[in-house]
Amino acid sequence: MGKITIKRFSCGEIYINVDETVRGKDVFLVQTATENVNEDYMELFLLIDTMRRSFANSVHVIIPHFGYARQDKLHEARETISAKLMADLIIKSGADHIVTFHLHSDQIQAFFDVPLDNLNTRKMFAKYFKNKNLNDLVVVSPDVGGAKAAKKFANELDVPIAILSKSRPEHNKATIDHVIGEVAHKTCILYDDMIDTAGSVCRAQSALVKKGANPDIYLCATHPVFSGDAIENLSTASFKEVVTTNTIPVPTEKKFKGLKQISIASLIAEVIDHVIRKTSVSSLYF
Amino acid sequence: MGKITIKRFSCGEIYINVDETVRGKDVFLVQTATENVNEDYMELFLLIDTMRRSFANSVHVIIPHFGYARQDKLHEARETISAKLMADLIIKSGADHIVTFHLHSDQIQAFFDVPLDNLNTRKMFAKYFKNKNLNDLVVVSPDVGGAKAAKKFANELDVPIAILSKSRPEHNKATIDHVIGEVAHKTCILYDDMIDTAGSVCRAQSALVKKGANPDIYLCATHPVFSGDAIENLSTASFKEVVTTNTIPVPTEKKFKGLKQISIASLIAEVIDHVIRKTSVSSLYF
Amino acid sequence: MGKITIKRFSCGEIYINVDETVRGKDVFLVQTATENVNEDYMELFLLIDTMRRSFANSVHVIIPHFGYARQDKLHEARETISAKLMADLIIKSGADHIVTFHLHSDQIQAFFDVPLDNLNTRKMFAKYFKNKNLNDLVVVSPDVGGAKAAKKFANELDVPIAILSKSRPEHNKATIDHVIGEVAHKTCILYDDMIDTAGSVCRAQSALVKKGANPDIYLCATHPVFSGDAIENLSTASFKEVVTTNTIPVPTEKKFKGLKQISIASLIAEVIDHVIRKTSVSSLYF
Amino acid sequence: MGKITIKRFSCGEIYINVDETVRGKDVFLVQTATENVNEDYMELFLLIDTMRRSFANSVHVIIPHFGYARQDKLHEARETISAKLMADLIIKSGADHIVTFHLHSDQIQAFFDVPLDNLNTRKMFAKYFKNKNLNDLVVVSPDVGGAKAAKKFANELDVPIAILSKSRPEHNKATIDHVIGEVAHKTCILYDDMIDTAGSVCRAQSALVKKGANPDIYLCATHPVFSGDAIENLSTASFKEVVTTNTIPVPTEKKFKGLKQISIASLIAEVIDHVIRKTSVSSLYF
Amino acid sequence: MGKITIKRFSCGEIYINVDETVRGKDVFLVQTATENVNEDYMELFLLIDTMRRSFANSVHVIIPHFGYARQDKLHEARETISAKLMADLIIKSGADHIVTFHLHSDQIQAFFDVPLDNLNTRKMFAKYFKNKNLNDLVVVSPDVGGAKAAKKFANELDVPIAILSKSRPEHNKATIDHVIGEVAHKTCILYDDMIDTAGSVCRAQSALVKKGANPDIYLCATHPVFSGDAIENLSTASFKEVVTTNTIPVPTEKKFKGLKQISIASLIAEVIDHVIRKTSVSSLYF
Amino acid sequence: MGKITIKRFSCGEIYINVDETVRGKDVFLVQTATENVNEDYMELFLLIDTMRRSFANSVHVIIPHFGYARQDKLHEARETISAKLMADLIIKSGADHIVTFHLHSDQIQAFFDVPLDNLNTRKMFAKYFKNKNLNDLVVVSPDVGGAKAAKKFANELDVPIAILSKSRPEHNKATIDHVIGEVAHKTCILYDDMIDTAGSVCRAQSALVKKGANPDIYLCATHPVFSGDAIENLSTASFKEVVTTNTIPVPTEKKFKGLKQISIASLIAEVIDHVIRKTSVSSLYF
Repeated sequence: MGKITIKRFSCGEIYINVDETVRGKDVFLVQTATENVNEDYMELFLLIDTMRRSFANSVHVIIPHFGYARQDKLHEARETISAKLMADLIIKSGADHIVTFHLHSDQIQAFFDVPLDNLNTRKMFAKYFKNKNLNDLVVVSPDVGGAKAAKKFANELDVPIAILSKSRPEHNKATIDHVIGEVAHKTCILYDDMIDTAGSVCRAQSALVKKGANPDIYLCATHPVFSGDAIENLSTASFKEVVTTNTIPVPTEKKFKGLKQISIASLIAEVIDHVIRKTSVSSLYF
Repeated sequence: MGKITIKRFSCGEIYINVDETVRGKDVFLVQTATENVNEDYMELFLLIDTMRRSFANSVHVIIPHFGYARQDKLHEARETISAKLMADLIIKSGADHIVTFHLHSDQIQAFFDVPLDNLNTRKMFAKYFKNKNLNDLVVVSPDVGGAKAAKKFANELDVPIAILSKSRPEHNKATIDHVIGEVAHKTCILYDDMIDTAGSVCRAQSALVKKGANPDIYLCATHPVFSGDAIENLSTASFKEVVTTNTIPVPTEKKFKGLKQISIASLIAEVIDHVIRKTSVSSLYF
Repeated sequence: MGKITIKRFSCGEIYINVDETVRGKDVFLVQTATENVNEDYMELFLLIDTMRRSFANSVHVIIPHFGYARQDKLHEARETISAKLMADLIIKSGADHIVTFHLHSDQIQAFFDVPLDNLNTRKMFAKYFKNKNLNDLVVVSPDVGGAKAAKKFANELDVPIAILSKSRPEHNKATIDHVIGEVAHKTCILYDDMIDTAGSVCRAQSALVKKGANPDIYLCATHPVFSGDAIENLSTASFKEVVTTNTIPVPTEKKFKGLKQISIASLIAEVIDHVIRKTSVSSLYF
Repeated sequence: MGKITIKRFSCGEIYINVDETVRGKDVFLVQTATENVNEDYMELFLLIDTMRRSFANSVHVIIPHFGYARQDKLHEARETISAKLMADLIIKSGADHIVTFHLHSDQIQAFFDVPLDNLNTRKMFAKYFKNKNLNDLVVVSPDVGGAKAAKKFANELDVPIAILSKSRPEHNKATIDHVIGEVAHKTCILYDDMIDTAGSVCRAQSALVKKGANPDIYLCATHPVFSGDAIENLSTASFKEVVTTNTIPVPTEKKFKGLKQISIASLIAEVIDHVIRKTSVSSLYF
Repeated sequence: MGKITIKRFSCGEIYINVDETVRGKDVFLVQTATENVNEDYMELFLLIDTMRRSFANSVHVIIPHFGYARQDKLHEARETISAKLMADLIIKSGADHIVTFHLHSDQIQAFFDVPLDNLNTRKMFAKYFKNKNLNDLVVVSPDVGGAKAAKKFANELDVPIAILSKSRPEHNKATIDHVIGEVAHKTCILYDDMIDTAGSVCRAQSALVKKGANPDIYLCATHPVFSGDAIENLSTASFKEVVTTNTIPVPTEKKFKGLKQISIASLIAEVIDHVIRKTSVSSLYF
Repeated sequence: MGKITIKRFSCGEIYINVDETVRGKDVFLVQTATENVNEDYMELFLLIDTMRRSFANSVHVIIPHFGYARQDKLHEARETISAKLMADLIIKSGADHIVTFHLHSDQIQAFFDVPLDNLNTRKMFAKYFKNKNLNDLVVVSPDVGGAKAAKKFANELDVPIAILSKSRPEHNKATIDHVIGEVAHKTCILYDDMIDTAGSVCRAQSALVKKGANPDIYLCATHPVFSGDAIENLSTASFKEVVTTNTIPVPTEKKFKGLKQISIASLIAEVIDHVIRKTSVSSLYF
């Protein structure tokens, strides 16, 4: 672990100073997108550039939660594709290699013009649920767009899927329509890449129960964004468990009953080890 | 319509000569991916470069069917993302603006570092089916990955969706698992972005009928790739209609009973007109 | 004035939608660096990119206060040159032309690989002070690094300069050493590019008074950053006037007695007019 | 020799999968242009890109026969320079180093913005002919454009040259005019960089015989393109020998009496060895 | 004709100031390579960059004599291809369009990644010689490398060619070997792209006379480089005429008896006119 | 020390040939700007490019005196920023790392998009003067623009500064106005980055003496440009010593009484050593 000084001047500007020589070194930076996503990105751009100007041999950027991932295509005219711009700015700042975790869409891999390892949390989650020996499981996607990811996770557990089909009248708001597939008398695992405001998953829970699902419903998602009313929503909802990772730090005051966090630390350690020893990383991502 | 000479030498090399001056002109090139997709791309690269070296003011590339679109992410380790490479090579050849139709995934928009208009055929298809006044319709996605596109098309028709969940043991081969959602006694429109070998959609048809669907099943997809045994498969299958567009030319000998082709010519004309008059194109794509 | 929607999702991400077509238009964006400098830059990157993806013909970026300008060189080993990175990221986002005001160092002009107009507020300030008909004026630079800029301003007023030579033991902290040049019985205009925490200029004021300067001291600087304890410092200090511009908005609660703001609006209007009519802008910057 | 899977889907698209890890490895790709030159190039672009995305340390591309080499300048207005475009697309795909053999023009070396080794077959051919101990040799260029290359080969053998001056009314067609230089009673080696349709060299043979040359004429060229009627032309022509290399594979059914193929395998082996050991390659190319 | 100030400081640095606004203008720069070729190039780089920073709309660079053109390939190991570097630096400086005259090799066209018009002097020279009504003409290339250019010029005049085959033991030194082709009793036009030291053409003259050629020999070449002992060599040689252009200015003291200079001014005027009116330039170059 | 051949053809073009293999080697080039600054830069561009084309692993460019450094910003409209263009062309030629000495302005560091080590001569000079044990020293900047650099040098010696405030009516001409700060009875060290024509420092000397300074005045500057009348000016001026380095070679005929040259050879040796051993260089530059 290298030493580095990062401070903010009273005018808001970030100041970075590396406290030891990195000349000719292979540097690994770990930076995730929290609720201060814009500050996080600016800090990341400056960190990468500092390493480059300090003669690092290569800069590997590990981004546990890639912010702006949902803006990966045009939803309406005259928007931009912010996820692509973030990728471009990261590359422009001088990154040589990117490591991400469970990207919102797999196509984002191609947004980076440098090699990228997109690590998967699917196996970690599957192992967790297999250890529970639950019967009559079904993986449920909270929306149609997540159906494919849910299918892959269901394949890992060797169980069927169901899908919630909602109409989303406005950004960030969600209304559930109806359940496609069989959920009656089954134990549901609602599966998604991230939990943001948790509004739609909470409404999904109600819809599933109404359809006769076992009321002990599990919520499973890689990225605990937990923004807006998420904590309130999740605290009042009676999920059996909310299983997530630590790609985004969850402060103690945000932790609620039923929250389980599986650490990605060993995955990061492993990928760094593979990169240094120049061995195949692929076993980590499929 | 400009005049151009394209020939192939006996050694296989393409030779292009523009027969009239394009100096300072805004050039529109239309090139689609047929079953000779590699020849098509090489011809396109050379065409764009010829226009650039001939002092065209701008080169607008209209690609009705964007080949390699399905290779838009890594499915396994040590593959590449061919769709991104095609985008890179098109840009490197000198394209200033791209027009595509119903991309396999919307994220491909971001693969191009120049502005792109991705036109949609959804409204054209919706209008066609509304005119038929069919009752009890359901839009069916032939696989889980296409669920979101099917949902958007279903919204346009204001009908529900169903999804076929298959396991695909090997590339280009498909095995249908089961139907998610209600199809009994309903008229199904199987909806996809393209019809390639038609193997999976023909198996989908059987699965739907087995589940009690109205046997008059419609197949609707933008790109008539029709490769391999597609024509044989579709001829023996008893689809009520196979509704597609002309983004790829279908030679007379490949035309079979029940094939309906809706022309995209007016869409192309309109987008060219908008570009020349510098008015908004967005009404054409959402 | 075009219409645009900018909002922040609860997860912190910025969302931008242009409310009218900009296809083929020349777009002028005005964005300054406030105390939320990192948010401001991210918003700017996204705005430029949105215009580019929305087919704008050209994107002119007017940056009244260019944040990170003071990080324009290495002060210590293993820092970076943040001002250069900001320039690189602005260009990468798609800017075609930059307009700045009184850059911290003139060399920053070269950081941008697109044409740049660096407009000067010197004449505006000179006119303001000439109208006061003050006698025995001296322009004082609050530190040695600002001596050249002070000299240029002094030339405009045809008066001598003096310089404060301080040692700065730590970033953002300042200790005044002594006055170089004659200030006794003179009316001093302390001149700088920006007022940040105002700590050094307040100490400068004391040093000047101690050296026998007329206690009616003027403070003149283009950018009212006013961060940290600036308002408190300036309120308790007894400057005759604090003359600045509106390159950064000063909220009402921050306004204090003696603050004068000269508007740059007409300069912006003029440069836009020159760009549209393709006439020389140079009279505005020297 | 690494393992790799290359297949073509029924829709014509190429699919590549590297069967072993190349992370951190120096990869050497060998790809030549056959009569399927466009397929060959597309496969090469995808191969290079696959290696880059699979974290290869460097990608060395060995191109025994560089297709489109003859399109290395504008012959008429509104053509393009296809050889330059091929070079650009190879570089864009991610190549770090290029190895070619006997380029159609030496200036093509400069088309690549990465280092290039252009290996020469001249010494190999010279050794072959020296071993025959032929008397009264003359090296003959089949056209004026090849005069310089013929001169270099003649210098290697220490014999004079002659040149055939033809007018070429149309692309790919050739009409011989007359012989410049002395050929009567001499043994001629017709020398060129490639044999394409062999039309012009066969007419050259007649012209030489008519001028009194020894009827035992040798044809010597690096690249056996053998397109169109080449095999028919060469089979009926009575060349003493047609000496070429294996830069392009010649299928058994195309092999005719008198064809001699000198292998470049050892040259490739040597250049790979030099690159790995970082020793000078230059002895191989002059 | 725009006004510009170019001066040299006593330290040798060039200083450029454009004396009138070029904002939004299409600028044409004319700069040729004289014997101060390095100064000429540096001045050109700075001129282009000045125009770009002064907001010119486009910069068209007319280079009558493209210096370093002969270094267009590797002659020996561990040289560079200087002509390509010059092209790269011109583009990097900001040129949008290049106009050249009779490049040393046609492939240099491809060295520029912006459109290029390579104008030809062949027709101008052909017209000049046709007006003389000379009989029994032969176009002679002074070396084998120039055979193709000589052939094209001969085709224009509808006469045969001959070639001098020399060995060049060292750079810039030349030794003539012998004449290939018929020259006895014929009037020779020695034809080349440039006359540098004139050593080889003077020796060529002797060789032709020795072979029985009409002693009234014409020397014809586009670029009058006239370096080293050129003037002395040409003054003592008894060429009937030395026909050249004014792509390089020839100072009065260098002018000798028999020198004819055909002006390219009208060609330059015409190409500028075509560019401004956006009409085809191609009639000027083939 | 590698062997290299650099010669100039009679036409003025530079020719470079590396006499030993550099394939895979880390090459260090040392090139300074003399009074033939344009020739020096062209030679440098060609040298870098030659190394790159000769397969050097990396090219480190050591530029003791960076020519055009004073043109680092716009002084008037429609100039360019030549120092930035030089940086761009050096990078375009293929440099991987730059080493400079005492740049005219620190911001020039950011002009290079590759890592740069700007080494400082301040400590060397400070050590030299400390050894003299002079009393009552003052460091004097010959103009306001150099005040900050003078301050840094004064800090090193722990003495005060004074500044000469001049008006410069025209480029390269200088008129001294007056002295800011105390110099009476003090020993002055006039300090600057370079001595060009020496006009202004000689006038500065007179001004200092007139103000009562100890007439034994020292002149200290890193770069001995010595152009125009510099030697004459310095020879007639009675500086106690003119202390400089050997970043630019001073030919014997230019050496005058009182000139002291401190060698930077050990600094260059040290930086090369650090780069090879990949240890921190920063101790050399602050």
